[in-house]
Amino acid sequence: MAEVPPTDEGWFVLHDFYTVDWDAWRAAPERDREAALDEVESFVAHREALAQADEGDSAVFSITGHEADLMFVHFRESLDELDRIERQFEQTAFADYTDHADSYVSVVEISGYTAPDYFEDPESVDTGLRKYFESKLTPEIPEDTYVSFYPMSKRRQPGQNWYDLDIEERAEMMEVHGDLGKQYAGKIEQVIASSVGLDDMEWGVTLFADDLTDVKDIVYEMRFDEVSAKYGEFGSFYVGRRFPPEDFPAFMAG
Amino acid sequence: MAEVPPTDEGWFVLHDFYTVDWDAWRAAPERDREAALDEVESFVAHREALAQADEGDSAVFSITGHEADLMFVHFRESLDELDRIERQFEQTAFADYTDHADSYVSVVEISGYTAPDYFEDPESVDTGLRKYFESKLTPEIPEDTYVSFYPMSKRRQPGQNWYDLDIEERAEMMEVHGDLGKQYAGKIEQVIASSVGLDDMEWGVTLFADDLTDVKDIVYEMRFDEVSAKYGEFGSFYVGRRFPPEDFPAFMAG
Amino acid sequence: MAEVPPTDEGWFVLHDFYTVDWDAWRAAPERDREAALDEVESFVAHREALAQADEGDSAVFSITGHEADLMFVHFRESLDELDRIERQFEQTAFADYTDHADSYVSVVEISGYTAPDYFEDPESVDTGLRKYFESKLTPEIPEDTYVSFYPMSKRRQPGQNWYDLDIEERAEMMEVHGDLGKQYAGKIEQVIASSVGLDDMEWGVTLFADDLTDVKDIVYEMRFDEVSAKYGEFGSFYVGRRFPPEDFPAFMAG
Amino acid sequence: MAEVPPTDEGWFVLHDFYTVDWDAWRAAPERDREAALDEVESFVAHREALAQADEGDSAVFSITGHEADLMFVHFRESLDELDRIERQFEQTAFADYTDHADSYVSVVEISGYTAPDYFEDPESVDTGLRKYFESKLTPEIPEDTYVSFYPMSKRRQPGQNWYDLDIEERAEMMEVHGDLGKQYAGKIEQVIASSVGLDDMEWGVTLFADDLTDVKDIVYEMRFDEVSAKYGEFGSFYVGRRFPPEDFPAFMAG
Amino acid sequence: MAEVPPTDEGWFVLHDFYTVDWDAWRAAPERDREAALDEVESFVAHREALAQADEGDSAVFSITGHEADLMFVHFRESLDELDRIERQFEQTAFADYTDHADSYVSVVEISGYTAPDYFEDPESVDTGLRKYFESKLTPEIPEDTYVSFYPMSKRRQPGQNWYDLDIEERAEMMEVHGDLGKQYAGKIEQVIASSVGLDDMEWGVTLFADDLTDVKDIVYEMRFDEVSAKYGEFGSFYVGRRFPPEDFPAFMAG
Repeated sequence: MAEVPPTDEGWFVLHDFYTVDWDAWRAAPERDREAALDEVESFVAHREALAQADEGDSAVFSITGHEADLMFVHFRESLDELDRIERQFEQTAFADYTDHADSYVSVVEISGYTAPDYFEDPESVDTGLRKYFESKLTPEIPEDTYVSFYPMSKRRQPGQNWYDLDIEERAEMMEVHGDLGKQYAGKIEQVIASSVGLDDMEWGVTLFADDLTDVKDIVYEMRFDEVSAKYGEFGSFYVGRRFPPEDFPAFMAG
Repeated sequence: MAEVPPTDEGWFVLHDFYTVDWDAWRAAPERDREAALDEVESFVAHREALAQADEGDSAVFSITGHEADLMFVHFRESLDELDRIERQFEQTAFADYTDHADSYVSVVEISGYTAPDYFEDPESVDTGLRKYFESKLTPEIPEDTYVSFYPMSKRRQPGQNWYDLDIEERAEMMEVHGDLGKQYAGKIEQVIASSVGLDDMEWGVTLFADDLTDVKDIVYEMRFDEVSAKYGEFGSFYVGRRFPPEDFPAFMAG
Repeated sequence: MAEVPPTDEGWFVLHDFYTVDWDAWRAAPERDREAALDEVESFVAHREALAQADEGDSAVFSITGHEADLMFVHFRESLDELDRIERQFEQTAFADYTDHADSYVSVVEISGYTAPDYFEDPESVDTGLRKYFESKLTPEIPEDTYVSFYPMSKRRQPGQNWYDLDIEERAEMMEVHGDLGKQYAGKIEQVIASSVGLDDMEWGVTLFADDLTDVKDIVYEMRFDEVSAKYGEFGSFYVGRRFPPEDFPAFMAG
Repeated sequence: MAEVPPTDEGWFVLHDFYTVDWDAWRAAPERDREAALDEVESFVAHREALAQADEGDSAVFSITGHEADLMFVHFRESLDELDRIERQFEQTAFADYTDHADSYVSVVEISGYTAPDYFEDPESVDTGLRKYFESKLTPEIPEDTYVSFYPMSKRRQPGQNWYDLDIEERAEMMEVHGDLGKQYAGKIEQVIASSVGLDDMEWGVTLFADDLTDVKDIVYEMRFDEVSAKYGEFGSFYVGRRFPPEDFPAFMAG
Repeated sequence: MAEVPPTDEGWFVLHDFYTVDWDAWRAAPERDREAALDEVESFVAHREALAQADEGDSAVFSITGHEADLMFVHFRESLDELDRIERQFEQTAFADYTDHADSYVSVVEISGYTAPDYFEDPESVDTGLRKYFESKLTPEIPEDTYVSFYPMSKRRQPGQNWYDLDIEERAEMMEVHGDLGKQYAGKIEQVIASSVGLDDMEWGVTLFADDLTDVKDIVYEMRFDEVSAKYGEFGSFYVGRRFPPEDFPAFMAG
């Protein structure tokens, strides 16, 4: 049996996707629409604020394309909180105008491929590195940012079986992969979260960027590194942009 | 033809998944909601109680994500009872506010890969082991627990064909798999049920845990053992948490 | 081009799957429900009776799981009759409370892999064998029985291409397969019907059994014989139990 | 790059599939139903008649199974006409009782694998052959016939890549395939239409037969010829029977 | 790691697909239909006009088949504009009669496989070539044209892994591919847009033609060139024809 890399877990994550029922929205009386907007704005603002107490984070994004109109991203310390948030959204008047189109459950994860020392003894590594890893586990969502979210798995087919490789070989490929990522430092922030045992694929990847072309570039470049070229299996991609809760009226008005 | 391992069967199992029609729920008069809550609470409580007579078990779980809001798990001695339970739920007023989103039919199974003696002559093995196997066939659902459910099959493709291997090779891999499972004793309880001939994949796996990270860890570690790495094909994963029937009002209130 | 085995065809078959719209049913006035029950009971009873004139057979089954609540199985001499039955069901008041969830069209078939003599000259084989084959082509549905239905195809991929094998090799594997089936004589009755050119996969398999565990066992054992292990591709599995038409009121009452 | 066979194109084709909303139909006043039947009967009769001017053909079929109740097949000189027919159907009162379940867009095609002379210089081949090819490009739909429709593609996977073979090898396989087809002359009429660039698979195949068993037989036999066994990828199969437009009332009455 | 080709990006693209709710349309009062037609005509005309300021382009197409009735294509300088257009459409009264059936998000892209000089130093290449490349990045939609749209990816499976090939090998195949395309100059205009990181496949291809048979021909021929035969994976194909916004009343009238 191939060696399992050590991992560390941070916040649990819920990506929650909704389509807007635009026909119902257009048909609703102005008064109902205002009430709905108040409730959803307050729902998001309240969760963004709570999140600032270092116990998570929350944000809403406008998604382009028919699969969804809105994506909420929530980071929290437990699944219970995420489960509650999901049900609390459904209590808002705004939820009347939405359908729950998709979702993804995961837990933020760092793995020991490239930093075995940290996993053996976190205190042994220098403070900067330790802080870096710790900050990866409790990510903050940048403001006014483009987002790309997609789930992925590693292949296990004959000739392309990630889970059958020596850990050294995997670590080497992950290092190349990581180095490529570092070239996008300052342009792309990424959150890697494991969904093994939690959702249909093995990881959820969330990329944040000021320039959407950087998202295209990094995903395209990475497709050529061995770990993706041979072993990456990708699910659906969602793309959009964060907006502040007070822009809900503008969002809904087109 | 490769040798078939002996198996023993226990209770039949129904995993039943429902989404809540939150729009209808919000729109319903308080009185109707109370009646619906009374009925579903009594529906679950009644079946949990019945189950205590050693003739099965029942529980309800809150599921996180858009695929389902609720999962009912029922263990019973016959398919007929499961079929009836499914239709009885639909008679409750609460069912008006739900859609039947998914389901899985299986029968609890132990196989002879790692304990051929037990299958040849159950009386020959020591009482402890016999009791252990027998208890695996009539599992109890832990209280206040996280759950992860997923169906799986063994691959039959060129180069990765489980059903074409010698039974010795399969038994060896199953032993490694089992040993890995034992390392999670006390942390993870698992129920393995065969759905061959009964539902779309070959087995349904239900994991219970106090700490959801253990679920992620065991499924991830197992992905590296040969039996999963090469031969495992996985369906959709559902994750959630058990709640007592008297918490239905709190569940529905967000 | 590999040699094509001879085949003989019997009755055309329609497996028709419906979900019940339980919300509409619960909301319907008692009087409408009674009328609907009368109509569906008479619809099934009439077709079961007609079938007894050796021109087909019909039955209704309660299906466990969300994919369907009811399966109707009809054997008839022509597609035209099956097509009419399907539309006649839709004329009943009961159909108002159902959705047409799935279906499968096929024609009962025996193939010449294991009995080439019968196909060259049916009169040459002994009467018992001839009668056996003839009875396979016009199957009767047992009463009070469990059922498992699934469609399947033979693979045509590199390394696992059934249609590229010598007929002798195929015949040999089919014989092993058939011998395994004979071990379940008295426990399992099976109907094999070809859907090549008629529906999405190549065959529809219907298994009847008094003990549902036998269904699991035979399908599991067969997965190890070469013809299934290497060449079988399976669709969705439906499992349920036959009930007499006069039990429709009990079925709908949970 | 492998050599591309020459092709000739005939009429554009639309296969249009509709389910009937039987609940709405049963609930509709007799008067509305009569008006709807008049409109659809006239819609079809009008298009069948127009078609007789050698500018296409049209027909309606009753489809067995849940995927569709009705299939319209239209041959026309341009996509524009097909697009208009599709929208014109939606203007009929009958369309109120239908949902658009599936469709397939293609263009009738003959390819030069087996008759290179015709493609180099159509005048050079004898008149009979030329007429034959020309008639294949503007097919007529037989009356009172069974139909089987399915889309298909050629595989492009390692070990089974049609598009990577020498044209001689392809031509040879196509000839065997064609010879097999000729054995069904008088029993089966087939229309081959390319959907490359037009719809999801590469060809649409429509088979017409007086005896539905012949459809099963030809598709089954062909599965053993190399071009299908190794290179054929099949989509969904629809089976049904043509009926004259004046039978719409009988069709809708069950 | 295989070398990544340089790329240049132009406008962002939204392909937006809608089905018409014909039942609702037929049922709507004449007055409401007129208002809806006015709004959608003005919605499209306005966006087509805006586009003429060299900041994008917009057009509407009638799509044949059940997947969609209408396709809108929008080229714009940012995702934000596309996102807004999508929501603005939903504000029109016409949107009441539509469902959002599909969509595709991408960014126009040229890659350096065949013109490395341009990418190293755009000024170094002759003005004609530079203008050509620049015009590819900001495409204009031809009037009165047939359209075929499909997403595609490059394969990454054992034996057919595009991302694992040397850049020279890829460049050579892309050149053959490009040469084949050039043979259709004047007949086919194509827009290639990357959707890596933005949508589910890797590119969206839009072909425009006066003669729809040319679309079939080019896609079929290209299927034989190595880059498609071995490495191309294709999604769904949509086919239709552009119409001027003032034809919306005729379009909706059949």
